Amino acid sequence: MNDLTQTPEMLIATMGARARRAAATIAQASDVQKADALRRAAQALRDQAPAIIAANARDMDNAVANGLSPALLDRLRLDAGRVEATAAGVEQVAGLPNPLGSVIDQSVRPNGLDLRRVRVPLGVIGIIYESRPNVTADAAALCLRAGNAVILRGGSEAKESNRAIHAAIVEGIVAAGLPADVVQLVPTTDRAAVGALLKAAEFVDLIVPRGGKSLVARVQDEARVPVLAHLDGINHSYVDGAADPTMAQQLVVNAKMRRTGICGATETVLIDSAYAYAPALVRALLDAQCEVRGDEAVQAMDARVKPADEADWDTEYLDAIVSVRLVDGVGEAIAHIAAHASHHTDAIITDDPATAERFLNAVDSAIVMWNASTQFADGGEFGLGAEIGISTGRLHARGPVALEGLTTYKWIVRGTGQVRP
Amino acid sequence: MNDLTQTPEMLIATMGARARRAAATIAQASDVQKADALRRAAQALRDQAPAIIAANARDMDNAVANGLSPALLDRLRLDAGRVEATAAGVEQVAGLPNPLGSVIDQSVRPNGLDLRRVRVPLGVIGIIYESRPNVTADAAALCLRAGNAVILRGGSEAKESNRAIHAAIVEGIVAAGLPADVVQLVPTTDRAAVGALLKAAEFVDLIVPRGGKSLVARVQDEARVPVLAHLDGINHSYVDGAADPTMAQQLVVNAKMRRTGICGATETVLIDSAYAYAPALVRALLDAQCEVRGDEAVQAMDARVKPADEADWDTEYLDAIVSVRLVDGVGEAIAHIAAHASHHTDAIITDDPATAERFLNAVDSAIVMWNASTQFADGGEFGLGAEIGISTGRLHARGPVALEGLTTYKWIVRGTGQVRP
Repeated sequence: MNDLTQTPEMLIATMGARARRAAATIAQASDVQKADALRRAAQALRDQAPAIIAANARDMDNAVANGLSPALLDRLRLDAGRVEATAAGVEQVAGLPNPLGSVIDQSVRPNGLDLRRVRVPLGVIGIIYESRPNVTADAAALCLRAGNAVILRGGSEAKESNRAIHAAIVEGIVAAGLPADVVQLVPTTDRAAVGALLKAAEFVDLIVPRGGKSLVARVQDEARVPVLAHLDGINHSYVDGAADPTMAQQLVVNAKMRRTGICGATETVLIDSAYAYAPALVRALLDAQCEVRGDEAVQAMDARVKPADEADWDTEYLDAIVSVRLVDGVGEAIAHIAAHASHHTDAIITDDPATAERFLNAVDSAIVMWNASTQFADGGEFGLGAEIGISTGRLHARGPVALEGLTTYKWIVRGTGQVRP
Repeated sequence: MNDLTQTPEMLIATMGARARRAAATIAQASDVQKADALRRAAQALRDQAPAIIAANARDMDNAVANGLSPALLDRLRLDAGRVEATAAGVEQVAGLPNPLGSVIDQSVRPNGLDLRRVRVPLGVIGIIYESRPNVTADAAALCLRAGNAVILRGGSEAKESNRAIHAAIVEGIVAAGLPADVVQLVPTTDRAAVGALLKAAEFVDLIVPRGGKSLVARVQDEARVPVLAHLDGINHSYVDGAADPTMAQQLVVNAKMRRTGICGATETVLIDSAYAYAPALVRALLDAQCEVRGDEAVQAMDARVKPADEADWDTEYLDAIVSVRLVDGVGEAIAHIAAHASHHTDAIITDDPATAERFLNAVDSAIVMWNASTQFADGGEFGLGAEIGISTGRLHARGPVALEGLTTYKWIVRGTGQVRP
């Protein structure tokens, strides 16, 4: 397919030009045809499940030989259930509402010009990801459904799995009459190809990194193409003096401990010094097997509390560890969050609506919550369908990004011969 | 105000940190207070008109001594009428609808969580501009009205004028009880300060260059901060075979010749080979004192037509020059535009609705028009109020960008104690 002796820049330029042509074609394809392509891709994934699982077994053998950690091995592993879940995910994207063609707003000017902003595809999207091979299918499905071409660059440890999944996706796309180049997989795991992709502003409209912090940091640092991503989820749950103690305990334990490794997990709990049930809350976290690192007041509540140092307020643990601090009311909570949050998801727990609204208004994060667990920070939980990622950037799309974030708009002006005076 | 012995990076970091603090304050200010600040700024501009005009006279003296062109001198010049127009523009921005706080969409999840996307300020905006001193007031007004802090960096030739206008704006802001740092002016015309501003992603959320092509190209090339801009307006008017000849002639002459120096001017006219009135159209352009550069078929229509070479199809003349080419129907017009347009504004002239819709759908430009002059590509003409610029980028905002483009959104989630299962 590609001559691997060429430079990474030549490879990406060739793929980019193909993607641009494919993007122009798919932008004109009907919604029925795009959904059909995804349903056929899902079927191809099912049909080719044995080949995909065999390819994955080769990746797993290499990964074991290379001493990958059990957590990474689990992310890499595919079995019949996971391939079926991947196919079902592609089908689910096919069933989402068409994100294109809707009129965002319309006006008729005094001179009779009819102006509409209409949703259109974004263009060409680059996805850079690590060990989970299902991203090959998930990301391709979302990009295609929104009328875009996509260039996928998966991790070297999953290269056989990614190739097999990509082949199935392309089979579905071609069977539906769309160009194979709508979904391209970078055929080399040379890291220089990532660098070239990150700089290919001529060919790529948006880069979405999917993976750990070091990947996202590299992408944000090197990219000359716009990036949609979040680096950290340093999220806060603030328990106000007017919080219901039962609700507060349930929410805080859920926000921290339901799954500690997801970006929506709470990392710091701020407790109003006027909240009378702070010791019980801290004990509930400790009893849930969470390590608590507290300021002096929190340390005094239970002997198991460890001292927090300054770095703790800026740490995303992604583990059963939480930093806890007493603050002097919602104002100090807002100030702490402004200084330390990654502006991903921050919550207040209170029965006082005025205090809640003050917090929701003043905290400048992608997601702000009142009396809810920060673990709800997820496109699926938000009813958006599958998400391509969560953005802590401020432009274009913020928070969970699904199909709409993979679109843009154009202005359509309809006249009857108006000239500008 | 600032120690000019510090490095440009230190200067921008200091100004950026101040802007971040001011942005947090103005984000919480009421709409009434922001509009009041702008009305007071307009009044201060009027009160200080003599000082502003005196400062401008110093800039003009320098500019004449430095041999600036008559066109640049005209851009730089301020008189009582222009200061009044600037003040009136600031007042007009004060009268626009509040762009903040509106609910973009809302949903209630099956678990009862209430989700809303609400418009909030973008944060800190950097404006880099050239000789027109009124941009100091215009850009400051738009950024402030949308709840943002702004760092202005004007051209060295206008430095005295910019300082005087900035002083008046700050007087209005402070009189309304808002921090002076909401609108900061970079106090040095050292070009290295521009470089530092373009890389200050920690402090600046968006850069808007306002000026000529070389400025925009430099900004797009060097920036690590997102940029909202257009480099070129290589715009097309396509005259279909089914166009009304009177309408076509009026529209094409207006689109090209009304003002040749604006970004919405048509630069290339594509004429359907089935259009019977092509020679009359070409003659109308020539008779309007427009130089016509045509392909061989167009050259055969009138002896005054000069030959077009390949570069003409990719040239933004910004002058009384037009390239004209015969094409084989709307399909070839769409293909020519895809190959040569800057994706700013492209129009079709036809009486056939099906052909028009095909064009409007297939042409991937920020603005597509049917039976209207491309010179309408303007935020004011679109009813948006004053515009901060026109974007040919695909993310965040496309086409004319006014107050909405200077905002983002956040997700506000209201619950009643929901934990994630």
